[in-house]
Amino acid sequence: MKTYNISIIKGDGIGPEIIDEAIKVLDAVSYSCGFALEYKEYLMGGAAIDVTGDPLPDDTVKGVLNSDACLFGAIGGEKWDTLPRDKRPETGLLKFREAMGVYANLRPATIYDELVNASTLKPEVIEGVDIMVVRELIGGIYFGKPRENDGFKAFNTMVYTKPEIQRIGKTAFGLAMKRDKRVCSVDKANVLEVSQLWRDTMEEIAKDYPEVQLSHMYVDNAAMQLIRNPKQFDVIVTGNIFGDILSDAASMVVGSIGLLPSASTGDKTAIYEPIHGSAPDIAGQGIANPIATIESAAMMLRYSLGESEAADKIEIAIKKALKDGYRTKDLASYDAKEVVTTSEMGDIIANYI
Amino acid sequence: MKTYNISIIKGDGIGPEIIDEAIKVLDAVSYSCGFALEYKEYLMGGAAIDVTGDPLPDDTVKGVLNSDACLFGAIGGEKWDTLPRDKRPETGLLKFREAMGVYANLRPATIYDELVNASTLKPEVIEGVDIMVVRELIGGIYFGKPRENDGFKAFNTMVYTKPEIQRIGKTAFGLAMKRDKRVCSVDKANVLEVSQLWRDTMEEIAKDYPEVQLSHMYVDNAAMQLIRNPKQFDVIVTGNIFGDILSDAASMVVGSIGLLPSASTGDKTAIYEPIHGSAPDIAGQGIANPIATIESAAMMLRYSLGESEAADKIEIAIKKALKDGYRTKDLASYDAKEVVTTSEMGDIIANYI
Ligand SMILES: CC(C)[C@H](C(=O)O)[C@@H](O)C(=O)O
Ligand SMILES: CC(C)[C@H](C(=O)O)[C@@H](O)C(=O)O
Repeated sequence: MKTYNISIIKGDGIGPEIIDEAIKVLDAVSYSCGFALEYKEYLMGGAAIDVTGDPLPDDTVKGVLNSDACLFGAIGGEKWDTLPRDKRPETGLLKFREAMGVYANLRPATIYDELVNASTLKPEVIEGVDIMVVRELIGGIYFGKPRENDGFKAFNTMVYTKPEIQRIGKTAFGLAMKRDKRVCSVDKANVLEVSQLWRDTMEEIAKDYPEVQLSHMYVDNAAMQLIRNPKQFDVIVTGNIFGDILSDAASMVVGSIGLLPSASTGDKTAIYEPIHGSAPDIAGQGIANPIATIESAAMMLRYSLGESEAADKIEIAIKKALKDGYRTKDLASYDAKEVVTTSEMGDIIANYI
Repeated sequence: MKTYNISIIKGDGIGPEIIDEAIKVLDAVSYSCGFALEYKEYLMGGAAIDVTGDPLPDDTVKGVLNSDACLFGAIGGEKWDTLPRDKRPETGLLKFREAMGVYANLRPATIYDELVNASTLKPEVIEGVDIMVVRELIGGIYFGKPRENDGFKAFNTMVYTKPEIQRIGKTAFGLAMKRDKRVCSVDKANVLEVSQLWRDTMEEIAKDYPEVQLSHMYVDNAAMQLIRNPKQFDVIVTGNIFGDILSDAASMVVGSIGLLPSASTGDKTAIYEPIHGSAPDIAGQGIANPIATIESAAMMLRYSLGESEAADKIEIAIKKALKDGYRTKDLASYDAKEVVTTSEMGDIIANYI
């Protein structure tokens, strides 16, 4: 039987609970589709700090690089916020992304018909929204040097090279070819030199994709347009920090932050994780919504393992669970027929498979 | 009779039209309140480039510095977008802000009851929203050096010193004292050193304002929270680029981008301008909404000239015009009784005074 090696990082807060449900669903679907998944668990973030003192142990880097794909929960929490910067969960996460070479972070913002009322935006504004935010993930101001804080003056460097922009640009244009063939590149080229290089490079790449329509938007305007008329977007491509801000805004626009998956891909491996965070305030109560993580598992099956039939099955099961009115607490006010726990939601989806 | 010297920069696109209406209203209110306004017009942006080749002529800098306050339209347009970077309208604007020392950009995001339906957000989410975004305006990545683009690699520097953070922090806390006494400082301290200094400095300033409650929020989360629950905010204080993005998002959340004024203040002078841009696509058609500019004129009277009675009169007149159902084209679908031109709207508001 075909067997895949999956590395698992549960992380902190609600991370372990939601990953457990994703594994439950993966087991059901692999059984029904006739392949096997072998999981190996690795430590990262706060959980790794508590055990090893290091937010990103070497074992984790090696283990994940040797796996077929990584399923990731969420990391971080107040408990570790006062540690020195290089010992914090976030530092581990950034080093991890860099070590994995995952330069492209894909964050879909789509609507579940059943939950169109869960957004704070009017239904007619968001119905049918289907945006793919492609965020550069291992460059820009997150990683730029020099960087310093001497207590009087502090600075960071927002930097991109042409090859870095080219590879993320190709990812975005490639995705657009499979979608509505429109790329909106977001920058601040009226102020920043680094954005001017970004814009010029996107223009160059566009020549290789004559079918794709490229437009440019300033980041301030993009933040407004996501609220004013999110339907206008197909693929949005942007740098690390702008992507951090805009992808969160996009997910809130569609109102389903507990439902949205993400994939971080590059040349070596890929990481699949929910876009929401570790939510320490609700950890351990059985009320976290596992759907974003289960969706991430489906993305993993489709993109890293080529098991699209299994991915389809998961997605159909999720839709059915929502349609049948099952809701975790976060969505209890949106047409819930029955409010269920984290693990009940996992059971329901697994049963539907 | 008390006489104030007002410098006027009409700028590009719809700038001239909307400034003309603000002057009409200022003339009406100064007459009725018994003071005089003397206007001197200066060139900036595209209009200045066309005449002098320079987006910020020296005359403009000197003239505005010598005035009691500056009323500003909007600048920029595609026509000048392909000029070398140092000759573009935006470069003139940034140099202007720096030369005027206006480090604090205040952007209120509030709701007009009559226009609660103009937002894409649900009325119950935005009713009563009253946010003041305090954006640092002459530092951060906009002005940081070194900055370079050699065609292969490009970078900018996001930099703040403690005194820069202190002065904008004091502005924010001072404003909060006159409002709901809550400051939310927005940064990305989990990733950026410059944000860590920002956060630490805000904490220090907070000690001098024991009545004000300080909270911190990461910029990605702030972008989400503005959409999820904008009512939670009172004063938001943040750096230049985060403020650029979030203040635009906030104004779109309340849905009244054509109605919102802004003030940029510092130690030397102050600039009052609408938050919307120069909208070249609708220039010269008599359909621009002049209210944001008229509101900006009211802010000028209140904050720079100490003529609060006159400011009140303008604000009451604007409310009455909206209540009576007069709308420019942009708001024609929101309870309009009569759709009026730019200049008719100016007339109506001036008449109500
Ligand atoms: C936790 C933080 C460092 C991270 C980021 O800013 O990239 C998070 O916000 C994300 O978007 O994955
Ligand atoms: C035109 C541009 C340079 C400017 C800025 O980014 O500051 C504008 O977006 C604004 O917010 O006033």
